[in-house]
Order: sequence, then structure tokens, then C-alpha cells
Amino acid sequence: MTTTNATATAGPQSGLFISFEGIDGSGKSTQCRRLVAALEAQGREVVLTREPGGSPGAEEIRALVLQGDADRWSAETEILLFTAARRDHLERTILPALAAGKVVICDRFADSTRMYQGLSRGDLRGTVDQLHDLMIGREPDLTILIDMDPEVGLSRALSRQGVEERFESFGADLQRQMRAGFLALADEFADRFRIINGAQDMDGVAADILAAVNVALAEA
Amino acid sequence: MTTTNATATAGPQSGLFISFEGIDGSGKSTQCRRLVAALEAQGREVVLTREPGGSPGAEEIRALVLQGDADRWSAETEILLFTAARRDHLERTILPALAAGKVVICDRFADSTRMYQGLSRGDLRGTVDQLHDLMIGREPDLTILIDMDPEVGLSRALSRQGVEERFESFGADLQRQMRAGFLALADEFADRFRIINGAQDMDGVAADILAAVNVALAEA
Repeated sequence: MTTTNATATAGPQSGLFISFEGIDGSGKSTQCRRLVAALEAQGREVVLTREPGGSPGAEEIRALVLQGDADRWSAETEILLFTAARRDHLERTILPALAAGKVVICDRFADSTRMYQGLSRGDLRGTVDQLHDLMIGREPDLTILIDMDPEVGLSRALSRQGVEERFESFGADLQRQMRAGFLALADEFADRFRIINGAQDMDGVAADILAAVNVALAEA
Repeated sequence: MTTTNATATAGPQSGLFISFEGIDGSGKSTQCRRLVAALEAQGREVVLTREPGGSPGAEEIRALVLQGDADRWSAETEILLFTAARRDHLERTILPALAAGKVVICDRFADSTRMYQGLSRGDLRGTVDQLHDLMIGREPDLTILIDMDPEVGLSRALSRQGVEERFESFGADLQRQMRAGFLALADEFADRFRIINGAQDMDGVAADILAAVNVALAEA
């Protein structure tokens, strides 16, 4: 396991920290649950979590950010609030599970912040990174990017119940930009990103993900 | 007027940004109100505000931080939340007032964060400063430190109504450490700090503060 920064590290018994990224409708949440089941069938202890949120305090911060008008918070204040939520999530949920030797599967992590900021306020990407280095200092050991044609993802997203208002109600052009943003991050952080072909049927996607995870577990 | 950082600046019509600092019971809030009255009598437009809080969003963040158990948030998460509140307060309350040529009087600002972190988690002072430089980037033009014997301040604080639980329920030893912490900051930021003798009667304190403020206004 690689720990990128001394600010927040797990102990010597640490497990594996896996994040899932991808455009809306890419099947992240379904595949996260399938991976939990597959790893538990292998005898692993697994914690499934998500961002924004993932701990009681982070969920309260998430609610504060997502409620109300879109211009309620500036981009800078929103970044600070999401970083506060991530710090709480890391301290209270992720690091204790890793220290207990568990596999942590997180539906979105800092790469989603980088991608969204890159699209909406690209001039803040440097600020996002400095804030991450200062207050989070931890990347996933493995990031699964489910990559797919945005038209497919969009039609899947729109057909779902309980769509997240602020983050998921984007159109096809924006989904294309998001896909490009994630692929650029996969290039920037090639050591930990694995790109999975999301155009396959769900069983094929799940098999590719499990194969990538088992390689990472064998190396951990 | 001196602007310390390009991240957040007021326009050319900018007024004067004054913060008040001091131990509990030093009379900050009373003296803030007296200064408002004195400046308005001179024909100035004045905005009185305070931290934590000072804008609708910042007040909500303040409530999130101050409610619940003392260990609800780690020191790092709390610093992030207070910085988010400060950013909102700066953007929504302080900078617009300065840009309109008003005098802004703020009961506590970043120096209170520096002082409290210096006492409770001195190892985080560097983090506090880096976060401030990255996300706030603005100091008051003038900081009024009402300095007094902690025994006097404590007896005043305990006799008041509506005492703030988390910040004001400290004993005499801690008040002495706070006084020392503020005096150290006054030394570190000597250009903008003015130390006022808080042991005088209230009229004497108010007169000394007004004199210091009028010097700063003449130089602005």
C-alpha cells in the first residue's frame, strides 16, 4: 500500500482503500455493491462508503452544502466545506477501517472534486490541490474509473429514482466534459487509476473490476 | 489602507477593516458598540459584525461547529469549518461593506483562531496560517487588543448573561495563557495591532480606541 502523505496514515495492519469514479449513470453504485459482495465471498471485511458524506459529521456538512440556492455558497466556501466533510469522513470512517485491515470502497472521493472544479472553476484546481495536500494528504490506493459513452450514462441516470439534484441533473454536453475530465485525471494519476470499460454488460464490468482489485490486493 | 493579499481585496473606494481581540470579559463587545456610535457621530457609515458567524451562511456553520459534544469534530475539521465560515463572512459581509467605503468593526477575526489553536493544538499553528493564506488572504487594517488582568476579565465574564459555552467558560489559568497569546500576536503583527489598556474605566478605554482608529482613518 502506498501512503502519499504523513498527515493521515493508517497503521501497519492497513487494508486497501478503493475509490470509484465515473460520470452519472456509469453504474458506480451498483458496481460498488457487487464488489462488496464479491470481496466478502472471498472472506474479506469490507466497508462501503460514499462522498460527499460517509460519516455522521460529514453527512451534516453535506446537507448544509446541498440544501438551498445554487449560489448560496461561493466556489471557495464550498471547497472548504467539502474538505471539512472529507477530513471527518477520512478520520472517522476510512482510516479506522483501514487500520483494522478492512477493504474500504468509497463511491467518489477527491477526484470528483478535482473533476467538478476543473469544469466549473478551472482556475481553482490549484487551490483544490493545495487544500487537499494540506488537510487531507491521502489518495486511494486504487481508483476504479468506469468509463462509458455519456449518452448511455445519461439515459441510465434519467431512468433512475432518487436522482441527486445538484450533481446529477446535467445534460449530455456536460457529461462529455466530465468523461474527458476523469480520463485526464486517470492520465495524471496513472499509478492508481484503472479504467474499466463500462459499455459491457454489468457482469463483464464487475469481472473486470474484481480482477483489478485482486491484483491490488495481492500487491498490498 | 494596506491590503495584504490579492486573493480578496476591496475596491478603490474601500473603507477601514477593524478587528477587536481580547480575553473574555475584556469588554470587546461593549467597546465595539461604543466605537460604532462614536464613528457614526463623526458621519461615518459603520458595519458591526462578529466571528464566528457574521453572515447567514457563516452563522449556520457556526451553529454546526458549536452544537454537540466537544469531540464531535477534530481540531483539523473544526479549523476547516471556521475557515469556510470566515470565507463566507468576508465575501458576503466584510468586503462589500469595505467596497462601499464603510468602516467594518469585527468582534474577533483570524487572530482569535490563531490564539486558540496556539493554546489547544500549537502544532497546528502552521496549518492555520497556511489555510488562512490560501483561502482568506486578508488581515484587518487595524486590530484593537483590549489588554487587561485576567482576574478582572474573568469576574466580568462570569457576571454576564448569555455566556457562550464553548469559548467563554474557561478559568483564570487559561485566561492568562490567552492574554499571553494575544500579546505574542500583537508583537508578531505589530504593524496593525494597537494594545489598549483595558484596566481603565470604560470611558478611558473608549477614548484610547477612538484615538487609535482616527489615526488609522487619517492614514487610510
